[in-house]
Amino acid sequence: MEERAHNFNAGPAALPLQVLEEIKNSFLNFKGSGMSIIEASHRSSVFDEVINDAVERVKRLLKLSDEYSVLFMQGGASHQFCMIPMNLALPDKPVDYINTGTWSTKAIKEAKIQGKDVRVIASSEDKDFSYLPSGFTVDKDASFLHFTSNNTIKGTQWQQYPDGEDVPLICDMSSDFMSHPIDMSQLGLIYAGAQKNLGPAGVAMVIIRDDMLKRVPDNLPTMLSYATFKDSKSLFNTPPTFAIYVIYLVLIWLEETIGGLEEIERINKEKASLLYEVIDESKIFKGTTEVNSRSIMNVTFRLTDEESEKSFLSEAMENSFLGLKGHKSVGGCRASIYNAVTLDSVQSLANFMREFEKNHK
Amino acid sequence: MEERAHNFNAGPAALPLQVLEEIKNSFLNFKGSGMSIIEASHRSSVFDEVINDAVERVKRLLKLSDEYSVLFMQGGASHQFCMIPMNLALPDKPVDYINTGTWSTKAIKEAKIQGKDVRVIASSEDKDFSYLPSGFTVDKDASFLHFTSNNTIKGTQWQQYPDGEDVPLICDMSSDFMSHPIDMSQLGLIYAGAQKNLGPAGVAMVIIRDDMLKRVPDNLPTMLSYATFKDSKSLFNTPPTFAIYVIYLVLIWLEETIGGLEEIERINKEKASLLYEVIDESKIFKGTTEVNSRSIMNVTFRLTDEESEKSFLSEAMENSFLGLKGHKSVGGCRASIYNAVTLDSVQSLANFMREFEKNHK
Repeated sequence: MEERAHNFNAGPAALPLQVLEEIKNSFLNFKGSGMSIIEASHRSSVFDEVINDAVERVKRLLKLSDEYSVLFMQGGASHQFCMIPMNLALPDKPVDYINTGTWSTKAIKEAKIQGKDVRVIASSEDKDFSYLPSGFTVDKDASFLHFTSNNTIKGTQWQQYPDGEDVPLICDMSSDFMSHPIDMSQLGLIYAGAQKNLGPAGVAMVIIRDDMLKRVPDNLPTMLSYATFKDSKSLFNTPPTFAIYVIYLVLIWLEETIGGLEEIERINKEKASLLYEVIDESKIFKGTTEVNSRSIMNVTFRLTDEESEKSFLSEAMENSFLGLKGHKSVGGCRASIYNAVTLDSVQSLANFMREFEKNHK
Repeated sequence: MEERAHNFNAGPAALPLQVLEEIKNSFLNFKGSGMSIIEASHRSSVFDEVINDAVERVKRLLKLSDEYSVLFMQGGASHQFCMIPMNLALPDKPVDYINTGTWSTKAIKEAKIQGKDVRVIASSEDKDFSYLPSGFTVDKDASFLHFTSNNTIKGTQWQQYPDGEDVPLICDMSSDFMSHPIDMSQLGLIYAGAQKNLGPAGVAMVIIRDDMLKRVPDNLPTMLSYATFKDSKSLFNTPPTFAIYVIYLVLIWLEETIGGLEEIERINKEKASLLYEVIDESKIFKGTTEVNSRSIMNVTFRLTDEESEKSFLSEAMENSFLGLKGHKSVGGCRASIYNAVTLDSVQSLANFMREFEKNHK
């Protein structure tokens, strides 16, 4: 087996070794087709099986009702920031957002560019997005309420979704999609760039409820309309076939090797506890968020000073712990421990952090 | 070596075996990074090298002047149909199109959806798009003149680009990009979905001239503005890293193994001649386009009746010649012989066609 590093990248991120090996082994001849999966037509029966099976697995894993459609789109979450207000804002009704960091801020910006009546009904900007807001009031007059379930950069995560009352929730789940079961009851649309828990960069998954599809204006550019992707089953034009194929393999792994979302959530919580335990017991590592807003996906922390942070990151790299540098906008350290990051990798990092502290007293 | 079929898919399509083998061999540990290329950060130095080298190779292969920027975008050519009028239409100036088939028709439709003043200044619709129009007049008042260099479905290809006079040409080169040298002198923007000659599905290349960038309105949604991709060097958000990596490998193959665009053009013409020769000498195979509009990328033909077509396609498949069915909108047969389809595959197909004719007199 090849030498593999401990990969704590924030995204694109670690993928299950089993998936990578499967891709490698069948790369020159996919399922006896005589060609690579990246050479196969998106209209072929071999690819049909891949995309249909992926959709079915998503429906099963999330226990989706028939009201929901599972779509594959391009352009990442950033493209969704633009499509959501364009498709789902109701005439003369405001669009509401909760601002919990960089990605929410970008989503809000795109709604404003389109001249929508944007209201930020809650924000944690006052404390540099280190917590999740509560106690805000939802106005039933809104077209929708948009929030970000997990904040990759700041390391916060909603443990329970905001109550939208009668307003449909729209959720950017890019960085914790498929990492735990989801309560879909108020969700009108969820979306996620694949490159965290689901697959490689280059595809975003969108799950949309029928009543949201009814809002889509008729006169939108074809590729900017959710209806196009729903009506064509994501095959209006050539989809990113390889990225969808990898998602399909990751879903097989999640369902059949791991055993589903309850099980992956249990493992993810165990991984996160290992690191938060080190942080809570440490005199040199310090968490950056309020304890009850902590993310089980992105564990963000700082050391006592920048010099120590530099030593920590450089020693970590020498020991094959990669991707631990915090986002350039905030600095510090971050361990992204998505589904495919193994318990063993996280345990090794926890041990390494303890060892580092011992050696740097 | 694995059993590989003769792949005549229209796209996604055949890729060079050398490229596929390289991907396979380094798939679990890319350049000693300890991770797969699909797990590497788009902000990492390993990926930086990939994307920068790809851009440099495109510039070298096409002999681009410094006025041009090479961008990687998502959403395929269909997404460009929407972006082009949105970004490049000048206020109160019409946008002009030449209609040579399905893809041009779709491009025209998207400009109309946006309410632009669309003029179709030339069309071959009168003869079912079986030829390329000539003798039309270009109006210097237009914002731009859009055309499709190669028509995948109908099997026609401009051997010499229309003369735009002072109007910048915009060209959809999806299906013949990088298959021959290009005269850039009048081209303001060219774009191509990668999945024909360049790489896998999931990325489109856009080459844009500085004066076109100056037209981009300030108030566009971020992901719909060419300026975003130019300013961020295609890294505003996570790009489709794997697809860009495959393009990089294909460009290395094109430059170093094949020897550049003059050489690949020579090979492509040789391949096309082999098939057109069979067609021209045949009593049962019949070309579908005017001879001087023929494509060297997509050789379209019919048999004398639908029954023979069915037998031909089914016998071809039994003999491992795949992807020969014409586009569902037109029927018939089509051999797509992009850069990576080997001379050997094409020679084998020509032999098979001759053999078929002999056996079905």
